[in-house]
Amino acid sequence: MKKQLLEALEWRYAAKRMKGKALPEDVLKRILEAIRLSPSSMGFAPYTILVVRDKSTRERILPHAFNQPQVVESGCLLVFATWTSFKEDQVEQYMQQISETRNVERTSLNGFAANILKKIKESSPEELREWAEKQAYIALGFGLTAAAVERIDATPMEGFIPKGVNDVLELEKKNLHATCLLALGYRDDQNDFLSSAKKVRRPHTELFIEI
Amino acid sequence: MKKQLLEALEWRYAAKRMKGKALPEDVLKRILEAIRLSPSSMGFAPYTILVVRDKSTRERILPHAFNQPQVVESGCLLVFATWTSFKEDQVEQYMQQISETRNVERTSLNGFAANILKKIKESSPEELREWAEKQAYIALGFGLTAAAVERIDATPMEGFIPKGVNDVLELEKKNLHATCLLALGYRDDQNDFLSSAKKVRRPHTELFIEI
Repeated sequence: MKKQLLEALEWRYAAKRMKGKALPEDVLKRILEAIRLSPSSMGFAPYTILVVRDKSTRERILPHAFNQPQVVESGCLLVFATWTSFKEDQVEQYMQQISETRNVERTSLNGFAANILKKIKESSPEELREWAEKQAYIALGFGLTAAAVERIDATPMEGFIPKGVNDVLELEKKNLHATCLLALGYRDDQNDFLSSAKKVRRPHTELFIEI
Repeated sequence: MKKQLLEALEWRYAAKRMKGKALPEDVLKRILEAIRLSPSSMGFAPYTILVVRDKSTRERILPHAFNQPQVVESGCLLVFATWTSFKEDQVEQYMQQISETRNVERTSLNGFAANILKKIKESSPEELREWAEKQAYIALGFGLTAAAVERIDATPMEGFIPKGVNDVLELEKKNLHATCLLALGYRDDQNDFLSSAKKVRRPHTELFIEI
């Protein structure tokens, strides 16, 4: 599988045009499962991911994403939405989940809960936003690699107006904020000149400094 | 390979204790290659990654990472360092690379170069820092999945004092800033109680909203 992963990552590119075909449900499920397994700071995963298959919803998102066709030509659009409110009950819910999953006393987690609450209390809203967004980007990385392994095209997108996407998906009242998009689908070779373009990456000797 | 990827991601966890064993060079090379292939906004990849095998350097980093043992018990410590200065010649170098790789005229890339320069000019230093850090986190995600596929333990770390790590690695004069660490190595089952703990993740129905 080791060389296969690199082949998959070589194969992938950010398709600008897609064929509008839906993903098989088992394939999408595996990509979402990889995202679910991604790690985050203290395991807190301060984000929620909207899985938008509905075409009319994606059509309403389109103008807020500078009309990039992959919003509607994808089979499914993932919206990584970070939490905008951090409360004690979210931490408590997480502690309950750890307690149940690992069959440990809730009280044994008091120190860990205090650490997360300390992080929340001592950070500004701006710092919490950044912290949450970074965790979402790790999950984005997991989604991108899993999609490549499935030979599903995946286009990460930062080019959109968060306020517009928030409004379409009614994210504000859910205390969520659209941070990045990931269009999943099938490349349209005929209409995407980039589909045959060689991948450009800085060479190893420039990207890495070995010590 | 599809189920194998999920098995690898289930297998992985953030090891707190490692065995101090070096990674085989071919294995490390494949993990770095996956990182190199990770996508970034406009393909600009505004980061440099330090590959720290040298034990004494890692010992000097240790106190700036709250003495977390995996800094020195890993086989290799990756330091994802984002660029702190964005200049026209970096954009020009990227354009030259595209031009050579894809065998296209440099002038055909004028519009693309202008887009990147516009992004740089219209963003505050804070915005550019955030933008660069997010791209580094995608690469972190690629490194984490590639390591799992290789059955190499990989611990992402945000708990460190950037200034201290910058000083040890003399990053400031290279216009770099330590953004996150990734310890690569072999889990020490005997000394890490978390090695046998069940993975805790929010269930699918809570993490995802389907539309």
